Amino acid sequence: MVDVSAKKPSTRVARAEARVKLSNAAARAIRSAGLKKGDALATAQIAGIMAAKQTPVLIPLTHPIPLSGVDVRFSWERNVLVVQTEARTNASTGVEMEALVAAAVAALTIYDMTKSSERGIRIEQLALLEKSGGRSGHWKASK
Amino acid sequence: MVDVSAKKPSTRVARAEARVKLSNAAARAIRSAGLKKGDALATAQIAGIMAAKQTPVLIPLTHPIPLSGVDVRFSWERNVLVVQTEARTNASTGVEMEALVAAAVAALTIYDMTKSSERGIRIEQLALLEKSGGRSGHWKASK
Amino acid sequence: MVDVSAKKPSTRVARAEARVKLSNAAARAIRSAGLKKGDALATAQIAGIMAAKQTPVLIPLTHPIPLSGVDVRFSWERNVLVVQTEARTNASTGVEMEALVAAAVAALTIYDMTKSSERGIRIEQLALLEKSGGRSGHWKASK
Amino acid sequence: MVDVSAKKPSTRVARAEARVKLSNAAARAIRSAGLKKGDALATAQIAGIMAAKQTPVLIPLTHPIPLSGVDVRFSWERNVLVVQTEARTNASTGVEMEALVAAAVAALTIYDMTKSSERGIRIEQLALLEKSGGRSGHWKASK
Amino acid sequence: MVDVSAKKPSTRVARAEARVKLSNAAARAIRSAGLKKGDALATAQIAGIMAAKQTPVLIPLTHPIPLSGVDVRFSWERNVLVVQTEARTNASTGVEMEALVAAAVAALTIYDMTKSSERGIRIEQLALLEKSGGRSGHWKASK
Amino acid sequence: MVDVSAKKPSTRVARAEARVKLSNAAARAIRSAGLKKGDALATAQIAGIMAAKQTPVLIPLTHPIPLSGVDVRFSWERNVLVVQTEARTNASTGVEMEALVAAAVAALTIYDMTKSSERGIRIEQLALLEKSGGRSGHWKASK
Repeated sequence: MVDVSAKKPSTRVARAEARVKLSNAAARAIRSAGLKKGDALATAQIAGIMAAKQTPVLIPLTHPIPLSGVDVRFSWERNVLVVQTEARTNASTGVEMEALVAAAVAALTIYDMTKSSERGIRIEQLALLEKSGGRSGHWKASK
Repeated sequence: MVDVSAKKPSTRVARAEARVKLSNAAARAIRSAGLKKGDALATAQIAGIMAAKQTPVLIPLTHPIPLSGVDVRFSWERNVLVVQTEARTNASTGVEMEALVAAAVAALTIYDMTKSSERGIRIEQLALLEKSGGRSGHWKASK
Repeated sequence: MVDVSAKKPSTRVARAEARVKLSNAAARAIRSAGLKKGDALATAQIAGIMAAKQTPVLIPLTHPIPLSGVDVRFSWERNVLVVQTEARTNASTGVEMEALVAAAVAALTIYDMTKSSERGIRIEQLALLEKSGGRSGHWKASK
Repeated sequence: MVDVSAKKPSTRVARAEARVKLSNAAARAIRSAGLKKGDALATAQIAGIMAAKQTPVLIPLTHPIPLSGVDVRFSWERNVLVVQTEARTNASTGVEMEALVAAAVAALTIYDMTKSSERGIRIEQLALLEKSGGRSGHWKASK
Repeated sequence: MVDVSAKKPSTRVARAEARVKLSNAAARAIRSAGLKKGDALATAQIAGIMAAKQTPVLIPLTHPIPLSGVDVRFSWERNVLVVQTEARTNASTGVEMEALVAAAVAALTIYDMTKSSERGIRIEQLALLEKSGGRSGHWKASK
Repeated sequence: MVDVSAKKPSTRVARAEARVKLSNAAARAIRSAGLKKGDALATAQIAGIMAAKQTPVLIPLTHPIPLSGVDVRFSWERNVLVVQTEARTNASTGVEMEALVAAAVAALTIYDMTKSSERGIRIEQLALLEKSGGRSGHWKASK
């Protein structure tokens, strides 16, 4: 675990995205909250937020940081459910992994809640969108 | 959390995959274990195995199950690092989520260990490949 | 931690209850999901289910058991939000603590999500309602 | 998880209480440490302190904070065991939930250690007593 | 994580030991429970039991197993505090690591509670004493 | 949990050591990474680093601190594998327990990965080597 004690704390923000490709039927079931297991989006949102807090337990070389905020939001592009996350901290190291873990776990929770009706759902992409703060400054993914 | 007490325990296996798209430079650094943070594949393998055991803590409606084995393996398709996982149990409910969580966390660990040199790495796909056991029997992803 | 290896596994069920006393305003806000922090009941339900799985980490002398199901449900008696939980297992030891932990954490999550508008909310009661299975058999709380 | 990055860290203290109603026999057994499972008060104290540190894992929208101290103390009002907790931090957000989680888990640990002799024990109240620090300042529960 | 699904569950027991070498003053303080931080032995016992349950989270390639019992006991050989643990299960894989983790964490808790008065305390030995059950049968450490 | 809110944060470092006594055969197997379970040193290093982050969950009265770095290194003295750890923070309380937990868990992971070939491996010593920072300043173990 790289020593970050010489780095000054600064405000850092990271945004990540996971894209879940669904069938028509599964997309409809989620939108209408008509799943046997309950409301998939509400459950996935909570799961993503809680998972972000578990990042140091999951990703071996990450530092425990005082997260000051985490958001998990959903939007639709046809049958693709787009999970977008944002993590914020004031720390000596970044929050990219927290944003990515939140996106991954929210997307996998969607999978868990729809898999009984459609096992072939795929997460088509899981990637960092943008980050700011820290020595390396602002970065934004190319499209 | 759906009641599974009426289901008989049976041997269940699930296999999942995550595909990590890297630049030439990052792929070379991983292959030669020439990363500042250490051996990325060994670290990602351990992270994936340990994360599989955390599945009930991460995915809200999953049942705690006695995992009898978890594997995380790597192969290369040009600059794409392919993470393949397998989870096994003898239980009343499946291990799809364990295999998927292992793949996601192993792939994100690769990201964590290479991000200082290349922030734009993407996980291009995270999906179930195959599962067997249980009432719904054998299932295999279409290509 | 008492040795239970001589006990035969059997189906066990436990039900618990927490009663959260709210003001008119807070009760109305929860019912209409009009809270700044989001839908309190959906969040509390997930929190209760996930906490039940953490029981062995929280209550020192409990045994890790393979939970086969956990439910968290809500009803209203005027301004009292009644949280009822049910935990099920097939194990050598009971699930009373799992049902109680789920009820406590669901109720505390309600508190967390309404406290900015009303800090004086009280959990008036947290108790086991009923349990069945195991050597001591069926038990039901007196009213 | 609400963004608290704009709030200045300040010293914050919260006190909570859980009231466990016991039978004469159970109260006597706890006072004399005459339980089969060991010293209930010592065990409940440790459980409460450790649970306070797990608050961000249990209550979905809480922030991870650097707890600077947690106390769990016991007193008796006839057959009612009064659990009082205090949590302290220097952070951008409060410690009410940490104090409440400590009280709930300490009380449930008492339940766990006495339930074999008396299953009908109830936690009659779980509530915040007082908090100070932060923008909303000092607050004290009415009697 | 080695696949154990072909192994039949059997009753397994493991016993481990940690030996903590103390100064006269520290040994006296622990025996009389005269430490500023409270009763060291009661705290260490709970810590050891709870840590045994965390073994799969700590030791990467261990399997999650349904522990049926864990004991942590203390005895004295002059100024050496002897921590002896026993873990039991009915599973397809052994409980050696659970017994060792309990011993290590109980011993480290003793260290934590006495270190303010004496930082040079050493754990002189941490080892398996005996194990039974499973394919390899009974094994006992040579003296 | 002792109140540390009046203490100023300062840079703190602690170093600990665990000594694992192996047979010739086991030492050779580890050095050549010829174990059935994989590369023991890489696995133990990750396990030690991850365990350091779990210290507040394991050692009851420790405070959660923002670890700024953890190292786990190995060297050999004949058949003794020497595990040396270093933990660093900028906090109001020390990191001795983090360094010790990392050393203990790394050493136990070595045990886990070699126990199938040699069950009698002992951890001969687990101790703090040195610490600096905080009110009590620099301390170094006598040889």
